[in-house]
Amino acid sequence: MWNWLGRRKPNGATRPARFSPRQVSRVLAECVNEAGGEASARSRMATLASTYVRLDDGGKHDFLELLASQGEDDEAKTRPLVDAYVKSSGSARQLAALHLRDTLAGTSLRILRQFNLLEDGVKFLVDLRADALRLANGNVSLQVIELELLSLFRDWFALGNLELRRITWNSPAALLERLMAYEAVHAIRSWADLKHRLESDRRCYAFFHPRMPGEPLVFVEVALMDRVASIIDALLDESAPATDPREAQAAVFYSISSTQPGLRGVSFGGFLIKRVVENLLGEFPRLETFATLSPVPGFRRWLDERLASATSALVSERGRAAFMRLAERRDPEGELRTALGGNAPADRATSEALEAVLVPLCARYLVDEKNDGLPADPVARFHFGNGARLDRIDWLANTSGRGLHESLGIMVNYVYEPSEIEANHEAYFRDGKLAISPAVRKLLAK
Amino acid sequence: MWNWLGRRKPNGATRPARFSPRQVSRVLAECVNEAGGEASARSRMATLASTYVRLDDGGKHDFLELLASQGEDDEAKTRPLVDAYVKSSGSARQLAALHLRDTLAGTSLRILRQFNLLEDGVKFLVDLRADALRLANGNVSLQVIELELLSLFRDWFALGNLELRRITWNSPAALLERLMAYEAVHAIRSWADLKHRLESDRRCYAFFHPRMPGEPLVFVEVALMDRVASIIDALLDESAPATDPREAQAAVFYSISSTQPGLRGVSFGGFLIKRVVENLLGEFPRLETFATLSPVPGFRRWLDERLASATSALVSERGRAAFMRLAERRDPEGELRTALGGNAPADRATSEALEAVLVPLCARYLVDEKNDGLPADPVARFHFGNGARLDRIDWLANTSGRGLHESLGIMVNYVYEPSEIEANHEAYFRDGKLAISPAVRKLLAK
Amino acid sequence: MWNWLGRRKPNGATRPARFSPRQVSRVLAECVNEAGGEASARSRMATLASTYVRLDDGGKHDFLELLASQGEDDEAKTRPLVDAYVKSSGSARQLAALHLRDTLAGTSLRILRQFNLLEDGVKFLVDLRADALRLANGNVSLQVIELELLSLFRDWFALGNLELRRITWNSPAALLERLMAYEAVHAIRSWADLKHRLESDRRCYAFFHPRMPGEPLVFVEVALMDRVASIIDALLDESAPATDPREAQAAVFYSISSTQPGLRGVSFGGFLIKRVVENLLGEFPRLETFATLSPVPGFRRWLDERLASATSALVSERGRAAFMRLAERRDPEGELRTALGGNAPADRATSEALEAVLVPLCARYLVDEKNDGLPADPVARFHFGNGARLDRIDWLANTSGRGLHESLGIMVNYVYEPSEIEANHEAYFRDGKLAISPAVRKLLAK
Amino acid sequence: MWNWLGRRKPNGATRPARFSPRQVSRVLAECVNEAGGEASARSRMATLASTYVRLDDGGKHDFLELLASQGEDDEAKTRPLVDAYVKSSGSARQLAALHLRDTLAGTSLRILRQFNLLEDGVKFLVDLRADALRLANGNVSLQVIELELLSLFRDWFALGNLELRRITWNSPAALLERLMAYEAVHAIRSWADLKHRLESDRRCYAFFHPRMPGEPLVFVEVALMDRVASIIDALLDESAPATDPREAQAAVFYSISSTQPGLRGVSFGGFLIKRVVENLLGEFPRLETFATLSPVPGFRRWLDERLASATSALVSERGRAAFMRLAERRDPEGELRTALGGNAPADRATSEALEAVLVPLCARYLVDEKNDGLPADPVARFHFGNGARLDRIDWLANTSGRGLHESLGIMVNYVYEPSEIEANHEAYFRDGKLAISPAVRKLLAK
Repeated sequence: MWNWLGRRKPNGATRPARFSPRQVSRVLAECVNEAGGEASARSRMATLASTYVRLDDGGKHDFLELLASQGEDDEAKTRPLVDAYVKSSGSARQLAALHLRDTLAGTSLRILRQFNLLEDGVKFLVDLRADALRLANGNVSLQVIELELLSLFRDWFALGNLELRRITWNSPAALLERLMAYEAVHAIRSWADLKHRLESDRRCYAFFHPRMPGEPLVFVEVALMDRVASIIDALLDESAPATDPREAQAAVFYSISSTQPGLRGVSFGGFLIKRVVENLLGEFPRLETFATLSPVPGFRRWLDERLASATSALVSERGRAAFMRLAERRDPEGELRTALGGNAPADRATSEALEAVLVPLCARYLVDEKNDGLPADPVARFHFGNGARLDRIDWLANTSGRGLHESLGIMVNYVYEPSEIEANHEAYFRDGKLAISPAVRKLLAK
Repeated sequence: MWNWLGRRKPNGATRPARFSPRQVSRVLAECVNEAGGEASARSRMATLASTYVRLDDGGKHDFLELLASQGEDDEAKTRPLVDAYVKSSGSARQLAALHLRDTLAGTSLRILRQFNLLEDGVKFLVDLRADALRLANGNVSLQVIELELLSLFRDWFALGNLELRRITWNSPAALLERLMAYEAVHAIRSWADLKHRLESDRRCYAFFHPRMPGEPLVFVEVALMDRVASIIDALLDESAPATDPREAQAAVFYSISSTQPGLRGVSFGGFLIKRVVENLLGEFPRLETFATLSPVPGFRRWLDERLASATSALVSERGRAAFMRLAERRDPEGELRTALGGNAPADRATSEALEAVLVPLCARYLVDEKNDGLPADPVARFHFGNGARLDRIDWLANTSGRGLHESLGIMVNYVYEPSEIEANHEAYFRDGKLAISPAVRKLLAK
Repeated sequence: MWNWLGRRKPNGATRPARFSPRQVSRVLAECVNEAGGEASARSRMATLASTYVRLDDGGKHDFLELLASQGEDDEAKTRPLVDAYVKSSGSARQLAALHLRDTLAGTSLRILRQFNLLEDGVKFLVDLRADALRLANGNVSLQVIELELLSLFRDWFALGNLELRRITWNSPAALLERLMAYEAVHAIRSWADLKHRLESDRRCYAFFHPRMPGEPLVFVEVALMDRVASIIDALLDESAPATDPREAQAAVFYSISSTQPGLRGVSFGGFLIKRVVENLLGEFPRLETFATLSPVPGFRRWLDERLASATSALVSERGRAAFMRLAERRDPEGELRTALGGNAPADRATSEALEAVLVPLCARYLVDEKNDGLPADPVARFHFGNGARLDRIDWLANTSGRGLHESLGIMVNYVYEPSEIEANHEAYFRDGKLAISPAVRKLLAK
Repeated sequence: MWNWLGRRKPNGATRPARFSPRQVSRVLAECVNEAGGEASARSRMATLASTYVRLDDGGKHDFLELLASQGEDDEAKTRPLVDAYVKSSGSARQLAALHLRDTLAGTSLRILRQFNLLEDGVKFLVDLRADALRLANGNVSLQVIELELLSLFRDWFALGNLELRRITWNSPAALLERLMAYEAVHAIRSWADLKHRLESDRRCYAFFHPRMPGEPLVFVEVALMDRVASIIDALLDESAPATDPREAQAAVFYSISSTQPGLRGVSFGGFLIKRVVENLLGEFPRLETFATLSPVPGFRRWLDERLASATSALVSERGRAAFMRLAERRDPEGELRTALGGNAPADRATSEALEAVLVPLCARYLVDEKNDGLPADPVARFHFGNGARLDRIDWLANTSGRGLHESLGIMVNYVYEPSEIEANHEAYFRDGKLAISPAVRKLLAK
């Protein structure tokens, strides 16, 4: 029936599926009419899904547009419902709103829901939305699709439906392989690196959805330590022996990664941290501190922009002089880029001079720089929003290429104080107030 | 905080919770504002739920009304969205529809969704809807609540989210205890009766939802037999020994029960039967026939009404005469009621006379009597809608009090032919065509 | 091949299998020769097992004798090994012992081990030993079989191979049904009674073997209470509401039952209690006391014998007089039997008089009455051996017919003090010392 | 108490434990006396085990000797039992044998059994036996220990106690890591190689013991193919795409590895193959052939020895001439070694010449060369013993260094014909008859 199914080429690779709009329309029409029973629907959706995944980006774009076009509504049907809604009041108005709403939840949504019949249907739709987001580029039809899916996902991936699971070296290899691919903060270099991150003094937790059992949605890596680490390298050193976690006093969250681009806008990272704090306290009652070791991904770009602008009063004359001494090229902005572009400062004096300038600037960046009233740095926004306290700014804490490039080598400890989380969270969202430690306040006063 | 929480009385019983509308309003307002983080919300919903379940019906009614009143919308907010929707076209109209829809999904829905945070939140909402249905009695506010929930449940309990599980004598006792309470067709009299229904030549399957793991949503009881049973008593006789199921040729579905009144309008019974047919074929490839042994719950009432109406041409003079001979009282309607009111016919001649009249009438009732174009008998409507064929009408197949009272002792075999199910299903919904065996056609011709 | 296989009779029942010794001999010979591979052996053992279970007691007796006769050894084979063993010394003697031992582990043991190939083979052998014990009656052949199995079972059912599992109302119904059948101390009257014993303030734990997963080997029922119960009736009252177990200070072990007569001589009851104490402490850290509420099954019989013997100085003149007042018949022994034979004392004065005499006598019976140097009462022997302390003797604690008949209404609290168990256990087995509370010491001093 | 416990050195490594014989003796004496209860025993065995694993080989040797010396028996105790046994007859003799046997099962066995209390006790004992085998070197004491354990293991690891599990890419990483380490036939080079061996057209099965749940005892790797592979390289090529296993007609067992040296003498490999054949037939009813692709590990050494002996008539003058042409050195034996020592023949003519000589010789080696009446080649002995048929000899089927070195590039297909396995097995063990295909017979006739 479906002649745009790609065929396997002799060498085992598959070529992209081709299709004519008329053919897709015909199948979508069957979906709309819900012809046949549930078994027909299931096989239809399976064909549709297996074809879709083999389309190239152009084909996907066309498919999504066609799908969206199914959703255009029938004015003759909606108009009386709109009128009834507008004219009524009280609980009759609620009833009218309900009917109107159900009618507005149009055909494309009805088709999308049918993918839920497939065993992997939920994952398919999450990936479909990732495609729609990636390919939209202002196209309203694709935007409609991704927003339809977003509203579905907010319900499907509600917190109550998620399952917290610990990931260990005894977890399925297929799951661990995905973890390696998904780690977004500190790349996992090998199976040996991964094994090191799952040793007895580490913990890794993830949220799962029952319909995507092998896919971690978001995961966090935790190190159990004597005290809060201020440098990432020690944590990632595979040759370091494990310590006894029962004696740990600090839990350091050194990496948190969301894995599904198709779930953008559905947030569960903050909830994950809180649930993990609970779990760790249950297992290790001696734990006193829960802190992150986080990058400052927007710092360097922000600083470069400021330095470039003539009116910037960010850096004092003395600071500017410090940069100058580090410079190889003449222009001050250039110097900084050069000075830290790839290498940590070579000597102690240079390092201390830079620290004296950069750490207070970083504090100011994290606290004062805002977008829409919320912290501009995405990591800061995430942790403040979860109820954490900006606790400490660590100089030369990540001297990897990426660490120097994005964060000028700086990392930050955000602290999750179980007794303060809720209050911080509320103060943040109600009043825009940020929780900041005395040490960071001192930096800001400079 | 919550002073309308009921307190335990000394003897361990609990009295119904009391509350003032102002107090509930305050808590609901907190829900609306989503004050605090997720942990606050969770504890708020837990309090709300534990209070609700201890309210008496009056209290529940008031609570549901208050809840619905939260949902009244803000015209200043919706009006511009309505306008934007009405005026736009193409994909912009779709986008506008989406925004309008999200806004119409009002406050009460947002509160209801928050119960999902609780471990038992899904079951709580299902029971809440059962209350709303039971107490509505024309009250539009309660109707709004139950319809909001219905639209949630259609998504949450979509087929793809359900899990088919076999129930055996090795299932948890707590689950089996619920099964006994839920069985709606042939009451389970004791644990011994239940055990008999789970023997080696029986199967019991149910659908479950991952968020209500101990609650069967709908379950079906199957007997594996030499040939399709025409009488229910043998199936329910606890002393009958089990036979070898590997030699069975027929699977008889003799009881199917939905368990959650709060899921009225969310249908999965037909899907259950199809999935069970698949499973049985996998386990017992010799099976040739899949049939129900079903009651005709509306037959007697229908017949009484017909007999009572003077214009009825249903019963020929000869048939009427047959009834007369059975009568103790004069009026024809009365006769029938008397004749079968509680007792099976005493002798063979009487039985044959009645059979000759009642069985063709029953065929006519099942096939010709319609509501809204679909069969009036609810069991017939269910099985025709699932793609089954009306195969055989069995006289004196259920001589229990209820069997005689409702179905005049008749039971019906609907047959599920794997190769015909989809086609029957489609012919039924597209053309209103019913699948009927030659034997039943012959009865209709009388 | 196997014509002594019973055939199904028309009515579904099976008649006992018949067999001729020659036929069994032939099959056993095949077992001995281990003809064919493992699949042949498996089907041979399956036939043997399914035939055996349908034999009547006479047939079982004959089968066991035949089986034992397979084990008669070949002197020509063992004689040189015996000689080698006797003549050697040092590690050569050990090696010789090993060879001799393996040879002495004769044919019947080799056949018995082959049942292990069957999925239910372990349970089959446990039941076979129960038969051998029941039917032995001095027959040395059957004794050989049961002793062979005992030595196997001591290894198979070693503590390390057992699994502790909690039993709840969510356990499989088939398992709970067995529990009801096995309860040996306080009969479980109905499913409702059982459910009451599994409520939130109760715990039930059992040991399982991986090869008999649905069979509890020994189980204990525990009530979590404010303080140690002194009367059994309250515990067994189904209408009593559950209390909050988190506030409990005492765990009362009110019933412990071994379930497999075929495991007589393999002891794990004491180990069960210690493991349960550990588990309870983990779940309820507030628990302070772990005590049993135990019967004194041998007390009445012992007392009757003592009263009957003329030389008995057990009862003082005053005590004898107390009995006399209760008597309906003249002779003192008779009086006691009459007085408590089935009914609790009718009035307070009678009760107190009896208590004053019987409780000290019971203390003396428990502590001083010995068999082979160990306490004569089997329950006392069990708990002293496990490291418990005889703590309290409760008058009129079990007024059921059996309680009065066996224990004259008395029950005993043995206390398991986690910090003392090991020391008590060792003192008991090394020095025969019994752990006794001051209160009981005072009784002994009377 | 235990001062020979090693201490952690600052760098995290541990140094070997030291101990004095007197200290060990003291602990062993406690084991013998079974002082304290079960909890004491458990902690004693834990200490003993954790100390043992840190001993160096010398320390282990001493420990094992000391352990064996505990087992020396008490002549005063055994002598009367020996006498009773020797003098009695009939079932009394059996009873005497039983008592003697139990007494001969001496102290060291009693100590060894106590390790079973530890969660990892079974694995500890398996490793202990591996040590005893490795270190024995004629030492009778160590031999006693390993034989004691062997007799234990034959019972513990009886077929009925083993669990067959499929291993997939979803198995725990820790388990897969072990598999990589254990693979003994074709080394697994990387995680990617392993993943390739677990693709959809492969199967991997292993036996597990419930007390060593993460340890495969023996595992087999299977490829599902159109027809029986004759060359190993294609199977091990990671870049080859997976084929559709449902269309496969042949299952090729290309690697089978035992993993526990401590289980030497306990055989389950053959049983594994039979169970896997059953499982595969259940999953893929189309499968027609079950064959191995096996090395001939003893062929080259055997051939070298034959060529070296002057009297050998193995190779005809013509064959000898063929070798000569391949030779670089003068002596004929040397030639062969040179010719294939590491490289496959360079041209077709050479290859065909060698094939014509070597393949018939290999057939003769496999069939005629015997040790103790059974085939000398260990792989041939294994498969013949399991009931397989020697089906085909594949020239240049394994051109890896090891393949050329051991098997001169030859591999062999042994076929497991489900309907013949039992008969072949029996003919082999009863009459020493080997199952051989016509094709191989033809080779033998040359």
